[in-house]
Amino acid sequence: MKLYTSIGPNPRLVRMFIAEKGLDIPLQTLDLMGGENRQAAFTAKNPMGQTPALELDDGTVLAETIPICEYLEECHPNPPLIGTTPEERAQVRMWTRRVELHITAPMADGFRFAEGLPIFKDRIRTIPHAADDLKAIARSGLAWLDGHLAGRSFICGDRYSLADIVLFAFVEFGGQVGQKVDPALENVAAWSARVAERPATVRSA
Amino acid sequence: MKLYTSIGPNPRLVRMFIAEKGLDIPLQTLDLMGGENRQAAFTAKNPMGQTPALELDDGTVLAETIPICEYLEECHPNPPLIGTTPEERAQVRMWTRRVELHITAPMADGFRFAEGLPIFKDRIRTIPHAADDLKAIARSGLAWLDGHLAGRSFICGDRYSLADIVLFAFVEFGGQVGQKVDPALENVAAWSARVAERPATVRSA
Repeated sequence: MKLYTSIGPNPRLVRMFIAEKGLDIPLQTLDLMGGENRQAAFTAKNPMGQTPALELDDGTVLAETIPICEYLEECHPNPPLIGTTPEERAQVRMWTRRVELHITAPMADGFRFAEGLPIFKDRIRTIPHAADDLKAIARSGLAWLDGHLAGRSFICGDRYSLADIVLFAFVEFGGQVGQKVDPALENVAAWSARVAERPATVRSA
Repeated sequence: MKLYTSIGPNPRLVRMFIAEKGLDIPLQTLDLMGGENRQAAFTAKNPMGQTPALELDDGTVLAETIPICEYLEECHPNPPLIGTTPEERAQVRMWTRRVELHITAPMADGFRFAEGLPIFKDRIRTIPHAADDLKAIARSGLAWLDGHLAGRSFICGDRYSLADIVLFAFVEFGGQVGQKVDPALENVAAWSARVAERPATVRSA
């Protein structure tokens, strides 16, 4: 097994997931800025030209961040980061979706369509005039999540899960590209500090 | 168990999934146009005020379309619509994501920010000036998928799966709201006809 990785929040979150599982999967780092992920050697493996991608021992390549995490959870159930029962898994998947739809997806597009435009303008169809609104949607989403986190250690309560990993990787990324979390969101700040000090988070930075 | 449903592609796709499984889950239809999904009786169950939502016998409410389908697959594995092995499930999840990211999500936002604006402008933050670009992204995504479907019965090959169900529900919806599929996309048209004639598709219309 081998993980194709690079800079960026999506590869980061898969590395965090792997580190929490205590797995040791060899990494091959692609030069995203130089466009190595868009060259034939990699698009033969993932036609979408995106990282991360997980190559299995039989040569099968799995792409898309969340499906890769689901696969790793199925092959290595402990410690559980999605869940041990259908109900637990449904809760984590539901919260992961909410985090993506209301926070991380608009945050990522807000970046791709503004600060990231030099990288992305020739790789995907961008909508520069939507960037500010997308960033505002992500900010609203974080404010909503701040309320949800009141009295909770993690997004799904006491359980640290994929939902936290997804959010943390993007919040860290946002902080580097002009989308810092409003410090008035005290519950998000406390949650972020809790995630940051986890050994697996440090190890996979 | 009870499914809260309404008009719209997301509830439709869960009903299609349930019909393919041969399940008989009682439905409660909410008046989306009248805003019944945003009233306290329902937001007490799903704070996001969105359909579909699945209420379990113990009162737990699961929201978000794909997590609901994953839950139903786990409780009722046959016939498989996600997969019977971790590798099969990863493939279906990967293709479902690609369909969502490149086609159905921009199609849905293209609608919400234009034709759907009277319904959505006071319910979510809309970006009307991004609507045309979002629709164009969805069209590009469909053209890309047309190439992928060449020589394949379904998105994941011979297996009918969640990826097909998601795409079909949105393509049907798009046809009703000004985002018809380009008839030059012959593989998409042939695939769409195959899905349309499935008994479960007819039954859940």
